[in-house]
Amino acid sequence: MPAPMTAATASPDLPLAPPVVPAPADEPVRSGVSDRAATQQAREQQVGQRPGTLTIREGSLVPRLFLISYDDTVFEEQEYTSYDELWAYFQANPQLKHWIDVRGYNDLALMQRLMQDFRIHALHMEDVLGDYQRAKVDVFDENRLFLVSRMTEFTSLLEIDDDQLSLVTGPNYVLSFQDDYDDCLDSVRNRLRSGFSMIRHKSSVYLAYALTDVVLDHYYPTMAAIGDYIEVLEDRIFQGRPNRHLLSRILQIKKDIVRFRRLVYPEREKIAEILRMPDAVVSEETKVFFKDCYDHAIQAMDLAESYRESISSLMDLYLSDQSNRMNEVMKVLTIISSIFIPLSFVVGLYGMNFQRENPDGSINHLNMPELYEPWGYPVLMAILALIVTGQLIYFYRKGWLTNR
Amino acid sequence: MPAPMTAATASPDLPLAPPVVPAPADEPVRSGVSDRAATQQAREQQVGQRPGTLTIREGSLVPRLFLISYDDTVFEEQEYTSYDELWAYFQANPQLKHWIDVRGYNDLALMQRLMQDFRIHALHMEDVLGDYQRAKVDVFDENRLFLVSRMTEFTSLLEIDDDQLSLVTGPNYVLSFQDDYDDCLDSVRNRLRSGFSMIRHKSSVYLAYALTDVVLDHYYPTMAAIGDYIEVLEDRIFQGRPNRHLLSRILQIKKDIVRFRRLVYPEREKIAEILRMPDAVVSEETKVFFKDCYDHAIQAMDLAESYRESISSLMDLYLSDQSNRMNEVMKVLTIISSIFIPLSFVVGLYGMNFQRENPDGSINHLNMPELYEPWGYPVLMAILALIVTGQLIYFYRKGWLTNR
Amino acid sequence: MPAPMTAATASPDLPLAPPVVPAPADEPVRSGVSDRAATQQAREQQVGQRPGTLTIREGSLVPRLFLISYDDTVFEEQEYTSYDELWAYFQANPQLKHWIDVRGYNDLALMQRLMQDFRIHALHMEDVLGDYQRAKVDVFDENRLFLVSRMTEFTSLLEIDDDQLSLVTGPNYVLSFQDDYDDCLDSVRNRLRSGFSMIRHKSSVYLAYALTDVVLDHYYPTMAAIGDYIEVLEDRIFQGRPNRHLLSRILQIKKDIVRFRRLVYPEREKIAEILRMPDAVVSEETKVFFKDCYDHAIQAMDLAESYRESISSLMDLYLSDQSNRMNEVMKVLTIISSIFIPLSFVVGLYGMNFQRENPDGSINHLNMPELYEPWGYPVLMAILALIVTGQLIYFYRKGWLTNR
Amino acid sequence: MPAPMTAATASPDLPLAPPVVPAPADEPVRSGVSDRAATQQAREQQVGQRPGTLTIREGSLVPRLFLISYDDTVFEEQEYTSYDELWAYFQANPQLKHWIDVRGYNDLALMQRLMQDFRIHALHMEDVLGDYQRAKVDVFDENRLFLVSRMTEFTSLLEIDDDQLSLVTGPNYVLSFQDDYDDCLDSVRNRLRSGFSMIRHKSSVYLAYALTDVVLDHYYPTMAAIGDYIEVLEDRIFQGRPNRHLLSRILQIKKDIVRFRRLVYPEREKIAEILRMPDAVVSEETKVFFKDCYDHAIQAMDLAESYRESISSLMDLYLSDQSNRMNEVMKVLTIISSIFIPLSFVVGLYGMNFQRENPDGSINHLNMPELYEPWGYPVLMAILALIVTGQLIYFYRKGWLTNR
Amino acid sequence: MPAPMTAATASPDLPLAPPVVPAPADEPVRSGVSDRAATQQAREQQVGQRPGTLTIREGSLVPRLFLISYDDTVFEEQEYTSYDELWAYFQANPQLKHWIDVRGYNDLALMQRLMQDFRIHALHMEDVLGDYQRAKVDVFDENRLFLVSRMTEFTSLLEIDDDQLSLVTGPNYVLSFQDDYDDCLDSVRNRLRSGFSMIRHKSSVYLAYALTDVVLDHYYPTMAAIGDYIEVLEDRIFQGRPNRHLLSRILQIKKDIVRFRRLVYPEREKIAEILRMPDAVVSEETKVFFKDCYDHAIQAMDLAESYRESISSLMDLYLSDQSNRMNEVMKVLTIISSIFIPLSFVVGLYGMNFQRENPDGSINHLNMPELYEPWGYPVLMAILALIVTGQLIYFYRKGWLTNR
Repeated sequence: MPAPMTAATASPDLPLAPPVVPAPADEPVRSGVSDRAATQQAREQQVGQRPGTLTIREGSLVPRLFLISYDDTVFEEQEYTSYDELWAYFQANPQLKHWIDVRGYNDLALMQRLMQDFRIHALHMEDVLGDYQRAKVDVFDENRLFLVSRMTEFTSLLEIDDDQLSLVTGPNYVLSFQDDYDDCLDSVRNRLRSGFSMIRHKSSVYLAYALTDVVLDHYYPTMAAIGDYIEVLEDRIFQGRPNRHLLSRILQIKKDIVRFRRLVYPEREKIAEILRMPDAVVSEETKVFFKDCYDHAIQAMDLAESYRESISSLMDLYLSDQSNRMNEVMKVLTIISSIFIPLSFVVGLYGMNFQRENPDGSINHLNMPELYEPWGYPVLMAILALIVTGQLIYFYRKGWLTNR
Repeated sequence: MPAPMTAATASPDLPLAPPVVPAPADEPVRSGVSDRAATQQAREQQVGQRPGTLTIREGSLVPRLFLISYDDTVFEEQEYTSYDELWAYFQANPQLKHWIDVRGYNDLALMQRLMQDFRIHALHMEDVLGDYQRAKVDVFDENRLFLVSRMTEFTSLLEIDDDQLSLVTGPNYVLSFQDDYDDCLDSVRNRLRSGFSMIRHKSSVYLAYALTDVVLDHYYPTMAAIGDYIEVLEDRIFQGRPNRHLLSRILQIKKDIVRFRRLVYPEREKIAEILRMPDAVVSEETKVFFKDCYDHAIQAMDLAESYRESISSLMDLYLSDQSNRMNEVMKVLTIISSIFIPLSFVVGLYGMNFQRENPDGSINHLNMPELYEPWGYPVLMAILALIVTGQLIYFYRKGWLTNR
Repeated sequence: MPAPMTAATASPDLPLAPPVVPAPADEPVRSGVSDRAATQQAREQQVGQRPGTLTIREGSLVPRLFLISYDDTVFEEQEYTSYDELWAYFQANPQLKHWIDVRGYNDLALMQRLMQDFRIHALHMEDVLGDYQRAKVDVFDENRLFLVSRMTEFTSLLEIDDDQLSLVTGPNYVLSFQDDYDDCLDSVRNRLRSGFSMIRHKSSVYLAYALTDVVLDHYYPTMAAIGDYIEVLEDRIFQGRPNRHLLSRILQIKKDIVRFRRLVYPEREKIAEILRMPDAVVSEETKVFFKDCYDHAIQAMDLAESYRESISSLMDLYLSDQSNRMNEVMKVLTIISSIFIPLSFVVGLYGMNFQRENPDGSINHLNMPELYEPWGYPVLMAILALIVTGQLIYFYRKGWLTNR
Repeated sequence: MPAPMTAATASPDLPLAPPVVPAPADEPVRSGVSDRAATQQAREQQVGQRPGTLTIREGSLVPRLFLISYDDTVFEEQEYTSYDELWAYFQANPQLKHWIDVRGYNDLALMQRLMQDFRIHALHMEDVLGDYQRAKVDVFDENRLFLVSRMTEFTSLLEIDDDQLSLVTGPNYVLSFQDDYDDCLDSVRNRLRSGFSMIRHKSSVYLAYALTDVVLDHYYPTMAAIGDYIEVLEDRIFQGRPNRHLLSRILQIKKDIVRFRRLVYPEREKIAEILRMPDAVVSEETKVFFKDCYDHAIQAMDLAESYRESISSLMDLYLSDQSNRMNEVMKVLTIISSIFIPLSFVVGLYGMNFQRENPDGSINHLNMPELYEPWGYPVLMAILALIVTGQLIYFYRKGWLTNR
Repeated sequence: MPAPMTAATASPDLPLAPPVVPAPADEPVRSGVSDRAATQQAREQQVGQRPGTLTIREGSLVPRLFLISYDDTVFEEQEYTSYDELWAYFQANPQLKHWIDVRGYNDLALMQRLMQDFRIHALHMEDVLGDYQRAKVDVFDENRLFLVSRMTEFTSLLEIDDDQLSLVTGPNYVLSFQDDYDDCLDSVRNRLRSGFSMIRHKSSVYLAYALTDVVLDHYYPTMAAIGDYIEVLEDRIFQGRPNRHLLSRILQIKKDIVRFRRLVYPEREKIAEILRMPDAVVSEETKVFFKDCYDHAIQAMDLAESYRESISSLMDLYLSDQSNRMNEVMKVLTIISSIFIPLSFVVGLYGMNFQRENPDGSINHLNMPELYEPWGYPVLMAILALIVTGQLIYFYRKGWLTNR
C-alpha cells in the first residue's frame, strides 16, 4: 500500500484547489496512461505451475496473528506471536466465535499449517497467497465460504491501489488474510469492541458480511477522491492553456475509472452469487444484509459510469480548446497580414523608380504623376488609413477582434 | 430543492428564446461538466457504519406530520404537531385507510418511534434517512412493500435535482417519507379530496401505486424542459459563433440526460419487479395499473435516448462549426496574401536601383529599360490589375469568395 | 398528418435528383437536429391525472364512424352519422363479423359510450385518446386483445411523422381508432371488398393481424424514401462544397433513423409477445401469419441499422471533406507565399540605397556592385526565374500542384 | 448475379497489386457509401398485399428444372423441359431420394403447381418468390423444413452481392429454388455423382444440410476477397496521398462488411434453431453436422469483426495522414516565411530615403549612416546570412527540416 | 511457430528501452494494420468439401510420436518412430494411463489409423488437421471429450501467433495433436516426471485439464509482452515527434489485442461448457480445477480490456500531439509574420519616392517631411523597437513564447 494521501507532494505544475487531492510529481504522471498494474498482474501470473502450489510472493510481510474471540457477552482481543498458542486457545473455546486475522504471508510453514488446521482447499490457499485474484466467492465443505474482496485506495500518484482481503468461514470462526498491517477494517473491530454490535449476536457468516460490507463502503471515498480530482481538472481546462500534462492526467483518471469498474463489477457478481445461494449456506436473515451490500455495489458502478461520462466530456472540452487556440493563433496572423500586406504593396508601389523625365528630358506625365502632386503624400496616408479602418470594421463584424 | 424555475436569472451571455427555460448565471455553469452530484453522493456515503444505524443528515428539516384518512365515504385530512395524537387517531380508526405523510427527518426519536410502531426494517429506515438510494422495491413481512422513488426537477442551474420519496405500505396504511415540505404529490391529494378517485375504493397498495405514478409523471416536464433547452442550444449554434460557453452547456445537458437515465432505469426495474410479484403481495388488478406505469417508464427512457442523440448531433454541429470558422479565417488570409504578395514583388522589382548609366556614362539598355518607357507606369498598372482579376476569378470559381 | 409528399416544395439550395424526394424549405430544416417530436411528446404527457381519465387532445377531429360487416358471403360497408344506428345494426347482426372504424376522437360522450358498449378498459381507452403510446399489445377479458401500432410517413419536411392506430378485438368484431380521416388501411378494405380475401373466412383476430401487417408494410416506403434521400446527400457531398446545411440535413436524417428504430423496436416486441400468447388467445393458425409479420419487423430494423451505418459514413466523408478544403486553402497560400516572399526579398535587396560613392567621392566597389554591372538586371531576372522554377518543381513533386 | 470477377475492369486511378481483386470503374464506386441494396430491398417490399400472394418479380428467369434421383446404388441426373414428365418420374420412383432443382421463377402456373404438388405453405412460397428474405428456418407439416440461405459474392464493383437459395424438404426429396442458372452448389452435385458421398446414404435432411453447408463455405472466399482488398487499401494509404476516392472505397468496404454481418448473423441463428429442434425433425446424427456448420458461421462472424476493426484502423490512418499533410504544408509555409519576411524587413530598411543632407546642406550623421560606410553592404549581407543560419538551426532542432 | 523473440531484429527507427520487447524491421510493420491472419484463415477454408474429409495442410511437419505412460508409481517416457510399436505397447498396458503426443500431421495414413484405433469422429479429425478452429469442446461416445485450445505467442513481428492444440480423451489416455515440435507443455511433462504431481493420481480428464491450464497460463506472458510494448509506445509518444510509424504500431497492437480477445473468449466459453457438463463426463472434483481455469480466462479477458483502453488513450494522445505540433508551427509563423510584416510596411513607407520639390522648385513640406528631419531615422528606429516590444509583450501574455 503506497504512502497515504495526507503527505501528498505538491506539484508546481498543477497546484490543486482542494488540499486533500494529491498532486503527483511530474515523472510518475508521465507513465500513467498505460496500465502498468495490469502488466504487473500479467507478469506475476505463475505459468505452468501445479495448481494449488503455495508460493510466497516476493516482498510479502512477516505474518502477524490477531485473534478476536467473542459471543454475546464475552469479548477478547489479542495479538499472538506463537501460532500454537492461538490454536490452543481456539481449540479450547469452541463455544466462542473467533476472528483469526492473519496479516502478512511470509511464512510458508505457517500458511501450510493454517491450511491443514482449518481445512482450506489448496486452490483457495493459492488464491490467498498467489497472483491477483478478482473478487469471488466459492462454497466448499458443503456450507463454508471462501470470499475474496479487493480494497481500493486512490493514491497520491493518482492511481487506484488495490489490496486483497481473503476470508474463509467455518462453523464458529472467520479467517481473514491480507498482506498488510494496516487495513480498513478497524470500524468492524470497534463495533465488536463496543458490545452493541449485531455481529456479537450473529453467526460467523454475518461477520464475513460485515467485513465485505466495510470493504465496499471504502469504495466511496475512493470515488469521491476521483470526483474531486475531476473537478480540479475541469477548473484547469477552464483556466485555458490546454497542454499535454493536462491531457495525460485526464487519460490517467479515465484509466483509474476503468480499473475501478473492473474491481467493482466482480464484487457485484460475488454478492449476487451469495444471494442465490441456498439458505443452508447463507441464512435468509443474513441475505437481507447482503442485499443491502448489493445495492451499494450497484451504486458504486453507477458512480463510475457517471465519472466516465464526465471524463469523456472533459476530453471533448480539451480537444475543442486545442482547436480554439489554433483558431486564435490563425486569427492574429490573418488580421495582421490582411491589414499590412496590402499596405506594403501600396507603399512599395510608390517606391518604384519610374522616370518622370523621358530620355529627351521632357516630362512624362504618365509615369507616377502622384509622386509630384503637392498633396500626394497626405492623400496617400489618408487612403491607407481608410483601408485599415475598412478592414478593422470587417473583422469586427466577423467577431474576430472581440475575445472569441 | 433549489428555487423553482419561475425566478430564473437572466444571463446576458446566453439569452433564451422561450421564457420558461432558465439561463443560469455564468459561474455555476462553468462547473457543470463534472458530476458534482455524484461526488456529493460518494462523499456522503457512511463508511464502516453498523448496517441499520439511523443518522440524520445535516440540513434535514424538522418533521411535519400529515394524516389523510379515508374510505369510500369518509375523508379526513389534518396536520398533527404531536405524533402521539396521530398515533392515537390511527389506532382508533382501523376501519379507515390512512396516508401518513412525514416531511422532514430531523427528529431521531420520532423516526425510531415510527420504525417501531409500524415495524419497519432497520435497513429500510436507514435507506429512508441515509445516503442516496436508487429507486427500488423490497417485500418484507410477507406482503408489505418498501418502495423508493426519486422525484426529479430541472433547476435554473441547468441541473437535474432529485429528491427521494420512500413509501412503506401496511394493511390499511401507506407511510410516505420525504425531506421536503413541498412536493409533487398534490394531484394525488386533490384526487383523494374529490371523492371520485378510485384510490378511495382501493387498497393501500393502490395508493402506493398512485404516488409512484405521479412521481413518474413528473419526469415528463423535466424531459420537456431539457428538450426546450436543447432547442435553445441548437438555435445558438445556428446563429454561429461557437464558443466554449456553448460547448460547456451542451456537455452539461448531456450530463443531465445521463443522470436522468441513471434515475429512470432503476425505476423501470422496480416496476418490473413489482409486476413479477405474486398476487398475494400485489393484486392482479393493481398490476394492470403498474403495467401502465411501466409503459411510462420505458417511454421516459426512450425520450432520454432521443435527447442523447440530439446532444450528440449538436456536438457534431459545434465541432464542424469550429472547423468551418478556421476555414473561413484561412480563406481570408489566403485570398489577401495571394493577391498582394505577388503584387508587392512586382512593385518591389521596379524599386530596384539598377543603374541605367554605365560607369562610362553610356546608357545601359539592359538595366530596367521599363523604367524609362513613356508608358511604363500605366502598362504596369494594367498588368497588376490583370493579375488581381485573374486571381479573383480563380477564387470565385473555387467558391471562396461567396459566403461559404 | 402533413401534406403528402407529391407536392414537395422545391428548394433552390438543395435541388433533388429523384423527384419523389421532397426538398424542404430552408426554415424548417434549420430546426431539424433537436428532436422536437420527443419534446412535444414529453410536454403532452398528462401529469398527476387519475389513471384512466379520458381527455380529448386539442386539435382532434370530429369522429366519423365506418362499419364494415362481413362473413364468407355477406359484405356491407357504410358510414354512419349516428352511433345509435351503428350500434343497433351491430346488435342485430351477431352472426356477421364487424370492423368498426372510428376516425377522429373529438366527442367525449361517444368515446365513453364506445368504452362501455364494447367493455374497453379505462386505461386502454386512455391510451387510445391520450398521450403518445408506443406499439404494444395487452390481453384483457381473458382472450380479447388491445393493440397499438404506429403508422409512419416520411414528410416533405424530412421528418418521420407517426400516427397511432389502436385496435380492440372482440368475439366477432374489431374496433379501430385513429385520429385521421385518411389512412394506410385501404388495401385491407379492398381485399375485404374483393371477396377473395382470407379475412372474410377467418376470425376477428385475423383482421387485427391484417391491419397490423399493413401498417408494418408501410414502414418500407418510409425507409425507401429515407434511402433515396441518403443517396441525394451522398451525391451532394461528392459534388463538393461541404456546408452547414448539408451537415444539418445529414444529422436530421440520422435523427429520423433513430426515431424510426424507436418506432419499430416496440412493434417487434409486440409481435414477439403475440407469438408467445396461449393458443386460446391467438390461434396457432394465425400465429403463422404473425410470424411472417415478425420477419418483416426484424428486416425493417435491419434496414434502419444499414442506413445508420450509411449516415455515419456520410458524416465521415463530410468531415474529411471539410478538412480537405482547409488543406487546399493552405496549399494555395503556401505555394504563392513560398514563391513570392523570397523573390520580394531579392528585389528588396537591390532597392537598398547603399552609396557607391565614398564621402571622399571615390567609388566604393564593395557597396552593391551588382547595380552597376551592365548585365546586372538580366542576370538577376534569370536567377529569379530559376528560383521560381525550382520551387514549382518541388511543389509538383509533392503533388501540391495537381488537383489533390 | 453480376459479371464474375475475372473480367475486372482496370482503374487507372487505383491500380491493384493482387490481380484477383477487382478495381471498379470510377462511376460505380462514387455511389458506394449509401446502401443502395438496402433501399432496393425496402422499395421492393410489397405493401398491403394479401399475405401468401404469389407474384413474380420483374426480371425473373424462365424456370429450368433439374432432377437428381439417387440412392445408395442408383444415380440419375436430368434436365426436364416438362414439369409433367418430372412429376411422373418422381411419382413413379418413391424408393429413390430426389433433389428437384428449380432455377428461375418466371412461370406463375408452374410455381402454383409446385406449391400444390409438394404441399408448400403459401407464405413460404411467397418467401421463395417475393421480397428479400433473411436466412431462416421454419418447421411445417410436423417434420418438414423450409430453409432460406443467402449466397454471397464479392463483385467487381466492390459490393457484396447476395442471392437467395430456398429449400423445402420432404420425406424423400429436397426442392431447391433459386433465380439464377449458375450457382455455388456444383460441389454437392459432384459429390453426389462420385458415389462415395455420405449424402447418397443419408436422409433428405442431410442433403439440405449439405446444400446449406456449401453456401456457408462460400462465405470464406467472399471474406478473403474483402481481406485482400483491405490490404490493397492499406498499401495505398502507406504510399501516401490520401484522397477522397481512397476514403470512399474504405467506407464502401466498411459498408460491405456490415452487410456481410447482416447476412451471416441470421444464418447462425437459423442453424442454432435447427440444433434446438427435436430429434424427430432433425436426427441427432445430422445435428452433429449442423454443429460443424454452426462453428463455421461463428468463425465467419469473427472474421467480419476482425475486418471491421481493420477498416476502423484504416480510417484512423487515413485521417491522421490528412492531418499530417496539412502539417507539412504549414511547415513549408512557416519555414519560408520565417526566413524571408525578416530579411525583407532589413533590406526594406535600407531602401528608405532618409536624407543625409540637412536642408542647410550639412551632413546629418544620424540619418542612416550605414549607407555611407565603405563596408556597409558586405557587413549587412553577413548579418543576413547569420539570421538565415540561425533560423535554419532552430528549425532543424525542431525537426521541421527532416522529412517528418 | 515463428522464431523466438530472443533474436529480435533491432529497428533503428524505433529502438526499444526494455530489451525483451522486439523491434521489428521496417517492412513487416508496414503491413500490420490489416488482419492478414484473418484473411489467411478465410482463404484456407476448404470450400464445398465433403465434411470429414482429411487433408494435410501444406507445410505440415512429419509426425513425431511421443508416449508418456504412468500411474501412481510407474513413469515411462519414449519417442517412437514406429506407430505399430507404440500401439502394441499401449495395448499391452491397459492398467497404465497414457499421454500420446503427436507432433506434426504430415502422414495421412498415420492420421487415419489414429482415427480408427482411437475411434475419433471424422469431423473432429478434420478439425485437428484442417482449417483454423476456435477453442471448443465436444462430448462424444457418451463421456469422451474432444478439446481444442489455441496457444499464443507475441512474435518479434509484433503479431500474435497462435497454434492449435487438439486433445482427445479416452478411458485411460489422452491424445494430443499439434503441428509443431516445440510447445509450451514442458511444465506438464516435468510435473509428471517429478512424481509428486497430482496428475499421476488422477484420471485422464485431469491430464486434459492440466494441458488446457498450461495453455491458458501462457496467455499471461503474451499479455505482459503486449503491456511492455504499450509502455514503449507511450514513452515514444511522450518523447514527442508523432509520426506515422508510431501510429501504425499503435494500430497493430490494437489489432493484436482484438485478436487476443477473439482467441480467449471461446476458451472461456469452452471451460464454461465443461463446468456445465454432467458429473459422469467430468467429475465434480475435476470441475473445481476447471473453475480455477475459468477464473484465469476471465482475468485474461479483463487484461485485454485494460490494454484496449490503454491503446485508445494512446491514440488520443497521439492525435492530440499531432494537433499540438500544428499549433506550434502556426505560432512560429504567426509571431514572426506579425512582428515583421508591420515593420516592413513602415520601412516601405519611407522608401517611397514622393518628391520634396514641387515642379516650380519650391519645397513641398507636405511630402514626407520626416525624411528631412535631422532625427528622423533614430526616431523611426525607436518607434520600430517599440512596436516589436509591444508585440512581444502581447505574445508573452498569451503564452505563445513559452514552450507551450
